[in-house]
Amino acid sequence: MNDVTNRRVILAAHPVGFPQNTDFELIESSVPEPSDGEVLLKTLYLSLDPYMRGRISQARSYAAGVEVGQTMVGGTVSRVTASQHPKYQAGDIVLSYSGWQEYEVTNGQGLHKLDPDHGPNPISTALGVMGMPGMTAYVGLLDIGRPQTGETVVVSSAAGAVGSVVGQIAKLHDCQTVGIAGTTEKCQYTIDEFGFDACINYKDDDFSEQLSRACPNGIDIYFENVGGKVFDTAYNLMNDSGRIPVCGMISRYNDTSLPEAPDTLPRLMRAILTRRLLVQGFIVTDHGTRLSTFSSDMSDWLKSGKIRYREDITEGLENAVATFQGLLRGENTGKSVIKVSQEP
Amino acid sequence: MNDVTNRRVILAAHPVGFPQNTDFELIESSVPEPSDGEVLLKTLYLSLDPYMRGRISQARSYAAGVEVGQTMVGGTVSRVTASQHPKYQAGDIVLSYSGWQEYEVTNGQGLHKLDPDHGPNPISTALGVMGMPGMTAYVGLLDIGRPQTGETVVVSSAAGAVGSVVGQIAKLHDCQTVGIAGTTEKCQYTIDEFGFDACINYKDDDFSEQLSRACPNGIDIYFENVGGKVFDTAYNLMNDSGRIPVCGMISRYNDTSLPEAPDTLPRLMRAILTRRLLVQGFIVTDHGTRLSTFSSDMSDWLKSGKIRYREDITEGLENAVATFQGLLRGENTGKSVIKVSQEP
Repeated sequence: MNDVTNRRVILAAHPVGFPQNTDFELIESSVPEPSDGEVLLKTLYLSLDPYMRGRISQARSYAAGVEVGQTMVGGTVSRVTASQHPKYQAGDIVLSYSGWQEYEVTNGQGLHKLDPDHGPNPISTALGVMGMPGMTAYVGLLDIGRPQTGETVVVSSAAGAVGSVVGQIAKLHDCQTVGIAGTTEKCQYTIDEFGFDACINYKDDDFSEQLSRACPNGIDIYFENVGGKVFDTAYNLMNDSGRIPVCGMISRYNDTSLPEAPDTLPRLMRAILTRRLLVQGFIVTDHGTRLSTFSSDMSDWLKSGKIRYREDITEGLENAVATFQGLLRGENTGKSVIKVSQEP
Repeated sequence: MNDVTNRRVILAAHPVGFPQNTDFELIESSVPEPSDGEVLLKTLYLSLDPYMRGRISQARSYAAGVEVGQTMVGGTVSRVTASQHPKYQAGDIVLSYSGWQEYEVTNGQGLHKLDPDHGPNPISTALGVMGMPGMTAYVGLLDIGRPQTGETVVVSSAAGAVGSVVGQIAKLHDCQTVGIAGTTEKCQYTIDEFGFDACINYKDDDFSEQLSRACPNGIDIYFENVGGKVFDTAYNLMNDSGRIPVCGMISRYNDTSLPEAPDTLPRLMRAILTRRLLVQGFIVTDHGTRLSTFSSDMSDWLKSGKIRYREDITEGLENAVATFQGLLRGENTGKSVIKVSQEP
C-alpha cells in the first residue's frame, strides 16, 4: 500500500497584528504507513479556538508555540484508519491533537477513545460542550468563580463555546446571568437559546450604562474572555469579594503595542485592593483532576436538556484560515469546528 | 468631678495629593464623665498605618471615610480611667479604636481587654506584630499566598510593620525571601534583623536587574504593599501559578490622576492569563475567624525568638501628623506608633 497524500496547513510566518492569509500555507505531503506501535488517523473534525492566536505568537504563552513551517496545532476528532497499536483498531473514533491536517501518524500518546455510538450527541461535541471549551467553562466558573445563589454573573463572549456554557451553569446555580456579545442577533440568541437573563451588545454606544442597568446589584463574578473596554466596564461594577476568572482576552490578541494613555493599571489595582477582588488566570489543562466529574455532570445536563449548545461548522480544511480569522473577529456563534472529512 | 480636657486631631480638609499640615487640626474639647454602661479611656499608644490615607480620601475604599471635622481614626492601646460598664474597671488595658485623641468615652463596643501583665512583649505590640499588621501579614501570606517549601517570596515594604513579618513567616515555611525597601540602611536591617535572604533598594537605577538576579528561579509569591514600578517589575518575574496577595499600594495613595502613557493594564492581564496568576486583594478584618490561630502562632514565634519586630515610636499626639507624613514617605522602619501618654 502506498503512502497517503495528506493536506495540512502550516504556519508560514508569525503574524504581526491580525493574522493574514499569507501567514499560513496549505501544502500537500505524504503520510507513511504506521509502523509497529503506531496508528494512522484520519481527521473528521478540527476545533478552532481563540487560544490558537497565542500559540502562533512569538510572545510567551502557555506552551511552546508553533514554529514557522510546522503544522498548525489543534484538537481533532479522528478515525483510526490503520493500526499497529495494540490499543486501537481501524474504525475507532478518537479525540486527538492532530492539528490542521487530514491525516496523522502517531504513537497513540494523548489519544482518548470516544464511545463508538457516541450517545445522543454528535461526536463533534467532544471538541465543544463535552470537551475543552465545556470543561473550561466548568472549572473557571465553579472552581474559581464559586457562584452562590442569587449572585450576578456576567459573561463576555456569551454566544461563544465557553461563554454560553458558563451562563447556563451559572443559571443552574440560581444566579442572575448577564451576557455580553457583539451583535443584536447574538444577544437575542444568547437569551432565547442559552437562557441568559439579559445580554448586552458591547458595540452599543451606551454599553456601559446598559451593563450597569442590567446589574442593579453589582457584579459578583465576571467571567473574562475578551479584555479591552468590556473588561474595564465590568471590573468597575464588581462587588466586594467579587471573582474574575481570566480565561482569555481575545480583543487584545492581535495588538502590536500597548494602548495610548493614561495607564489604567493603578485603577485596576485599587479596585482589587479596596473591593478585595480575586483575579485568577487559568488554563483547563491544569485542572485535569476535574475531568471525570465534569464529564459526568455535563453528560447529565445535556441528557436532561439543562444545557444547550450550538456548533458553527464549516466544511473543508481549505476554509480553516478564513474561519479562524472570522473567529478572531467574533463572527461565529457557538463552537467553531471545521468538518475536515465525511464520517464513514 | 469635671469633664476631662481632651486633645484630638481632626480632619480639616480631604487631602488632594500628599497630605499637608493644613489638612489636619489639633483641637481641644471636653470629654464628659462616662454615663451608665460607658467607660472613659485614656490613650497610651496610637497606631499609624498606611491604610489611613485611604480613609481620608473621598474615593471609594474599604469603609466609610473620615469626614471633615471628625476625629482621625486609628487603633489605640488605652487605659480605662473610669468605668460605668460591668465588664471593665479602672486600670484595665484595652485595645480600642479611639483614633487620634487623648481620651474617649465609649460604650465598650469593639474593645478587647489585654493581658494585664501583657507577657514578655510591650503592650504597644498589640498595635503591631501581635495586632492588625501582624495578622495582615499572616493571613495574606498563608491564606492567599500559600507558601510551599523552596518557593521564592518577594515582599515590598520589607522593613515595614507588615512586610517584615511576611518575610519571617515565609522563612519559617522554608522559602527563599527577597525584600524590597527604599534605603540601603533599611535593606541591611531587613537582612540582619528580619533574616531576609536578600533585600533590594528600589531607588537603585538597576533595581530591576538586581531583583531579577536575586530571584534566579523567578517569583512564586509577591506580597504587594506598594504599587508603581516595584509592582511592575515584580509581576513580570512571576512564575506560572504564582500568587500576588494585594495588601496595599502606598506609592499610589497620593496620586491625583492616572500615570501617563502607555496603558499597561493589558500587559498585566496577559501575564495573569498566560502564567495563571492569582491576584487577590484582602483586608484583615474579613479574616476574623483566623484571629485565635494567629494569636497563638505569633505568640509562640515571639517567645521562641523565631519572629522579631521593630517599633518606631514617636512621643506626643502633636507629632502625629508629621509622623504620618513620614510614614507615607517611607521614613519609618518598623511599626509606626505614637506614644500619646505615659503608662501609669
